[in-house]
Amino acid sequence: MSERADMAEPRPDELPVDGKTADQAESRHDEDDRLRPDFVSAVLDAVEDGDRDLARDLVSPLHPADIADLLELTPSDRRGEVAAALGDLVGAEVLSELNDYVRDDLLDALEPQQVADFAAELDTDDAVAMIEDMEAADQQAVLDALDPEDRAAIESALSYPEESAGRLMQRDLVAVPEHMTVGQVIDYLRDNRDLTTDFWEIFVVDEAHKPIGTCQLSWILTCPRSIAMADVMKREQTLIPVDMDQEEVALRFQKYALISAAVVDASGRLVGMITVDDIVHIIAEEAGEDILRLSGAGEGDINQPILEAVRTRLSWLVVNLGTAVLAASVVGFFQETISKYVVLAVLMPIVSGMGGNAGTQTMAVAVRALATNQLTSSNTLRQIVREFRIASANGTALGILIGIAVGLIYGNPDLGLVIAIAMLINNLVAGLAGILVPVTLDRFNIDPAVSSAVFVTTLTDVMGFFSFLGLATVWGL
Amino acid sequence: MSERADMAEPRPDELPVDGKTADQAESRHDEDDRLRPDFVSAVLDAVEDGDRDLARDLVSPLHPADIADLLELTPSDRRGEVAAALGDLVGAEVLSELNDYVRDDLLDALEPQQVADFAAELDTDDAVAMIEDMEAADQQAVLDALDPEDRAAIESALSYPEESAGRLMQRDLVAVPEHMTVGQVIDYLRDNRDLTTDFWEIFVVDEAHKPIGTCQLSWILTCPRSIAMADVMKREQTLIPVDMDQEEVALRFQKYALISAAVVDASGRLVGMITVDDIVHIIAEEAGEDILRLSGAGEGDINQPILEAVRTRLSWLVVNLGTAVLAASVVGFFQETISKYVVLAVLMPIVSGMGGNAGTQTMAVAVRALATNQLTSSNTLRQIVREFRIASANGTALGILIGIAVGLIYGNPDLGLVIAIAMLINNLVAGLAGILVPVTLDRFNIDPAVSSAVFVTTLTDVMGFFSFLGLATVWGL
Repeated sequence: MSERADMAEPRPDELPVDGKTADQAESRHDEDDRLRPDFVSAVLDAVEDGDRDLARDLVSPLHPADIADLLELTPSDRRGEVAAALGDLVGAEVLSELNDYVRDDLLDALEPQQVADFAAELDTDDAVAMIEDMEAADQQAVLDALDPEDRAAIESALSYPEESAGRLMQRDLVAVPEHMTVGQVIDYLRDNRDLTTDFWEIFVVDEAHKPIGTCQLSWILTCPRSIAMADVMKREQTLIPVDMDQEEVALRFQKYALISAAVVDASGRLVGMITVDDIVHIIAEEAGEDILRLSGAGEGDINQPILEAVRTRLSWLVVNLGTAVLAASVVGFFQETISKYVVLAVLMPIVSGMGGNAGTQTMAVAVRALATNQLTSSNTLRQIVREFRIASANGTALGILIGIAVGLIYGNPDLGLVIAIAMLINNLVAGLAGILVPVTLDRFNIDPAVSSAVFVTTLTDVMGFFSFLGLATVWGL
Repeated sequence: MSERADMAEPRPDELPVDGKTADQAESRHDEDDRLRPDFVSAVLDAVEDGDRDLARDLVSPLHPADIADLLELTPSDRRGEVAAALGDLVGAEVLSELNDYVRDDLLDALEPQQVADFAAELDTDDAVAMIEDMEAADQQAVLDALDPEDRAAIESALSYPEESAGRLMQRDLVAVPEHMTVGQVIDYLRDNRDLTTDFWEIFVVDEAHKPIGTCQLSWILTCPRSIAMADVMKREQTLIPVDMDQEEVALRFQKYALISAAVVDASGRLVGMITVDDIVHIIAEEAGEDILRLSGAGEGDINQPILEAVRTRLSWLVVNLGTAVLAASVVGFFQETISKYVVLAVLMPIVSGMGGNAGTQTMAVAVRALATNQLTSSNTLRQIVREFRIASANGTALGILIGIAVGLIYGNPDLGLVIAIAMLINNLVAGLAGILVPVTLDRFNIDPAVSSAVFVTTLTDVMGFFSFLGLATVWGL
């Protein structure tokens, strides 16, 4: 509804700017801010026709993030050609916005000197992200092509573990001693033109360069010049150890609503700064990847080369094939019962399947709660009890439902009772496994999103078949 | 590894501050920044013993976000008591950090005037988040208890749709005309002490109060006083329509790496500002909720009342029960075949189950790619082809594997061939359904995360049974 309202008139973020009309702007994006397919085709056609000027005219009004999107939407075998046609429109900023796979693909076609030129334009963290996945030899060639200062900064970042704060931080920041006044800080900023201009907070440090406070720029701007930084800054601050994992960094930014944070080395000295705009995509990635891991899709990136995707998914499927064979062997024990009463074969997948569904629900809740630090050892027991109660309620309801239906349809109350009890049992197994498995894996520092599903679905399959066919055998059906 | 290194010495973010020793600080948090269970117990015990002073001493050094965590970790029947004992330590900021369910629970016990006092302390967006889920009558009582200015601001926010930009924005912002110089802006900020002090950018507006540019505070601080705002500001800006859905807002903040953004009404006038710290938790929520929706766990919040959780999950399970019965009825058609060769009943769950696994992989990838705007109509066809190729590879590999194993184990090459072909067919069905279902739902503006799983698993169950048992029947096994 609201989207329709947007479309009736030019979207405010595409009102005439720089002489472009709203209509021209409107035609590039759909209402969800995605590039329109006909716009993408128009660019690709222009490139194919060799009309470089038209292609550049079409693309030049785009934000670098949109140019990155355009390259991602281009079929992989044409990306090099399109990037070449667009020339300097595909700058360092576009590269840093690109999906990792797409970027690596494009960089492979460039000379080390060209990559180095791009890297030199970027903040350290973006330059590092650009070259950290290159082959060692290619990476070294790029580093060699950099000027010594940039090279030193990037090499220092690369010395920290992958996905650590040291790789995310930038070294350009503003740090001042606490005795400086607001006026002196402003003068210092005005006089030092080679300082970064992209910062949101100023760090106040002691003589050993250890952070003792943080000051939002708005506080400086709203204070008289005579006030000392010591009286403006906030002393409580969240410092990020340089070797902290990026997932942990992201959680702290979220929890404490940080805009930027000081990064400190083992001795507590200020060595860099992380800003929230570099964290936002990590927050989204970390929160979004659980679904991919839980389903065994690995990274699940649509730009991942097919062979790599096949390898990741197949290895997971083969593990599942093993557990499916295990579950089937349970059925094998009861062949005699089934051959006497084939309807059991018809009904057994219902019991195992419903257990799988219920287990997946609980597992998803537990995996998310663990990832967001909501489920901790302080409330684990309470949550297990909670899941058991939910499973009892659901199992009872589903058992009654299927029991009555089966009893009536097959005119066999005993069969109804057996499937009802089996359904309840398997729901309880599912509920308990759904929370116990992820919690246990987490205790052993194994990512519950990656490994929980195998255990839980194996348990619900095995117990589904065993409880139903076992009860049926004992009951003498 | 890195965490162990942290623990060997005081964590940098808990170095002595305000006279607290590192040891005391250390004992409150574990290495993942979660409150330690023994710390939580110590607080609960102190409250139980009526030792309010000890409880307050323990809690007072905590950040509001940690006090919120403490209340969440407290069993629900003791939260009111603990909050009462902590008194003013549970302030407005703590309430705004609390999980929605936990907060609503606590607010229910308060008088409207008390809630109004909390609301008055908060930014509009946080106050709105606090009272938007209250019963209409309770909400009105709180509004009546507010002073007219706060009431007007909150009522205006509540007039926008739930989860829209209008509810997220704050009205306190700094907007200046473009002819002002940097010096004049600084003087204006220093002279107007009732302006907000929490802002990161200044908006430049025209006479009609429409935003024409945005200026980072760092640019103002690094410029001479004489420069006009028109020459410092950036004219390209992402404006947020006031009725835009919060998910869309979150995507724009991510895509364009925004720290804050101007919110405009239908006529393009500046009406508010959204800052990234209010968006960060939405980004995490939106990215994380797909896994919960796909598994049918609804909101999947561990603080959700049990009855509500049962209702949500059960309704999904009942739908799945229907589809399971449908799939079982396919098996029903082949009872005669099964009764002749019971091994088919043993093997059939393998074929359907593996299809379900493969379908879930593809579906997870597609749902994420749709949610992140990576999968658009420009590349849908390409992705369908990609998934088909992956499914062919995986289906062939799995078919050969299970075919040979079954052929050998049962000494029946025909049975091996039948299960191999059925496995390939079901993997192709899974791969195609895994992408076609979410893409189709998305086209019809139905959330693919909510509804895809039912369709995909029904298809893989039905086709798994049908292809395997059907082939076995035709083959005359």
